[in-house]
Amino acid sequence: MVEKIYHTIASIKPLDEKAMAEARKRQNNLTKPQGSLGQLESLSIQIAGIKGNPRSRLIHKVIFTLAGDHGVTEEAVSAYPSEVTPQMIYNFLRGGAAINVLARQVGARVVVADLGVASVLERHPDLKDRKVAMGTQNMCRGPAMSREETIHSIEAGIELVEEELAKGIDILGTGDMGIGNTTPSSAITASITGADVVFVTGRGTGLDDEGWKRKVKIIQRALEINRPDPKDAIDVLSKVGGFEIGGIAGVILAGAKYRIPVVIDGFISGAAALIATSFSPQVKPYLIVSHQSAEQGHKIILEHLGLKPLLNLDLRLGEGTGAALGIFLAEASLKILDEMATFAEAGVSGKT
Amino acid sequence: MVEKIYHTIASIKPLDEKAMAEARKRQNNLTKPQGSLGQLESLSIQIAGIKGNPRSRLIHKVIFTLAGDHGVTEEAVSAYPSEVTPQMIYNFLRGGAAINVLARQVGARVVVADLGVASVLERHPDLKDRKVAMGTQNMCRGPAMSREETIHSIEAGIELVEEELAKGIDILGTGDMGIGNTTPSSAITASITGADVVFVTGRGTGLDDEGWKRKVKIIQRALEINRPDPKDAIDVLSKVGGFEIGGIAGVILAGAKYRIPVVIDGFISGAAALIATSFSPQVKPYLIVSHQSAEQGHKIILEHLGLKPLLNLDLRLGEGTGAALGIFLAEASLKILDEMATFAEAGVSGKT
Repeated sequence: MVEKIYHTIASIKPLDEKAMAEARKRQNNLTKPQGSLGQLESLSIQIAGIKGNPRSRLIHKVIFTLAGDHGVTEEAVSAYPSEVTPQMIYNFLRGGAAINVLARQVGARVVVADLGVASVLERHPDLKDRKVAMGTQNMCRGPAMSREETIHSIEAGIELVEEELAKGIDILGTGDMGIGNTTPSSAITASITGADVVFVTGRGTGLDDEGWKRKVKIIQRALEINRPDPKDAIDVLSKVGGFEIGGIAGVILAGAKYRIPVVIDGFISGAAALIATSFSPQVKPYLIVSHQSAEQGHKIILEHLGLKPLLNLDLRLGEGTGAALGIFLAEASLKILDEMATFAEAGVSGKT
Repeated sequence: MVEKIYHTIASIKPLDEKAMAEARKRQNNLTKPQGSLGQLESLSIQIAGIKGNPRSRLIHKVIFTLAGDHGVTEEAVSAYPSEVTPQMIYNFLRGGAAINVLARQVGARVVVADLGVASVLERHPDLKDRKVAMGTQNMCRGPAMSREETIHSIEAGIELVEEELAKGIDILGTGDMGIGNTTPSSAITASITGADVVFVTGRGTGLDDEGWKRKVKIIQRALEINRPDPKDAIDVLSKVGGFEIGGIAGVILAGAKYRIPVVIDGFISGAAALIATSFSPQVKPYLIVSHQSAEQGHKIILEHLGLKPLLNLDLRLGEGTGAALGIFLAEASLKILDEMATFAEAGVSGKT
């Protein structure tokens, strides 16, 4: 049953160099000094390579907001109770959350999916039921998930993207909801990057000093007890991860397979990106990092991946909120490439 | 005739603390951890204070793109010839420039004005003729402008905003066009901040090493010959500034007077902000810094003003392009404040 994941990974191709060269040539002929739009120029060239099209447009924008609960919350690692996870899902479905507001602004649809929420959710036409289990186990007493559950979560993410392909996806953003999920994200980051737990652990939704120290100890204990193998992404994810993190890793893999630009949100999506890129280095060129989170471990993830964020607004909400802003910038970059006049068209003189 | 400027400055009031307190209270009750939207939260509170309204919307967005030419270009300080200034104005009027693309994306109208272009421009219904002179004088041989011309340029900027008030301005962005205008902007920055010329001088539209060294020497010579008084903003602007920079300073002053959030673009707008804030410290709370330019002097301006940029995308184009992106983020911040559900409305539990 792991075949779906390996088949997806094996289907990922390098970016289209020809489309990138054409996009770069056009950028250099537009009525502005070469390079003067900085990251907006490089972003448009990257997207040209991803889509194999030097002049593409973004009609269908989709943000995947995946939810799961975490057994480790019984160790009091979060400032909010786990019941907030389902409450926020209903908030998403009613359109009252931050991700709804920003998705509306940028013209994206939000796909909300239950990957492993620890309560039975009311059915809703806009809620995708991909529940693998009723939350993870407490990772400081043993593995968070079985290997089988872990694979299921990744596959669910891949399938969520595949289901949406029929409606169209020109760009996708990742997002998460899960009380306690900065704790597994810190554990994944420590395991894969080798960074010390104290440097990858932040205050999440708002821990005080004492809470932060407790969280660090819990993560250290989870890593000691489980000894995840950093060379085996499924092992890391199963032992100290979570269902929504696995799902986001699947979304990322599917994005790369189907040549869709993948706009990564903050720390939790970053941990999922560590998992996805551990499967294959071919994934990385498909990633667009929307922002650098206020959560300190995110900087270490981005340094490890060698990726530069577009924004640094001290966001630490998740849900895909940073990704929505990143989608706006991706669209700006493509509109620049597509709509600006060239020097020849506008009759503007070039460099002396 | 300097009365208009002083009258404008005298009309600038502090931000509305009551509106800010109400906005802050609402931000803290929205369904997200307090502070988790970082700069988007503080931005919404600042705008509440500017507009005296804790829950405002942005309907009318206006970017003022002001143009002027610079006598100092005869010293070969720019990679492009001065004829590009009028050519780009026609490009703006046809909608083919970067600022047109980004303004369309964010729903802003662009007001293009000639403050001092060194050629006679064809009349156009969308071009505001506020020409003070046919370009500045070469500032390394004497003052760039007379004191009277300088005052005219600032007044023209104030009047441009006043003319647009009838059509509605809920937020404004500043922008510039003027071949050679990083040279006066560097000179203004060195004069007002006291920083050494080598640290405030960049490559503009793309100078090579030799060109950069020549530009530094030209700026040093202009400052030596003119000896602008850093305590007298009009003196600095007249001796080493430019018409569009004066105009932008006027736009900023008028924005503050009429309680309009002023989204500052890059280096040239930053130099104008140095001038405007030199007139009165009351101006600063009205400023929103859209981005930090790749032009190295901009960082020094922002440090001097103590303002943090929203974006850092290595932009160095001007025209108001960064301001357009900043207007999008300002709108995002207000939509978050206005449209998100509160904990009570959504039935979401608070902190444990």
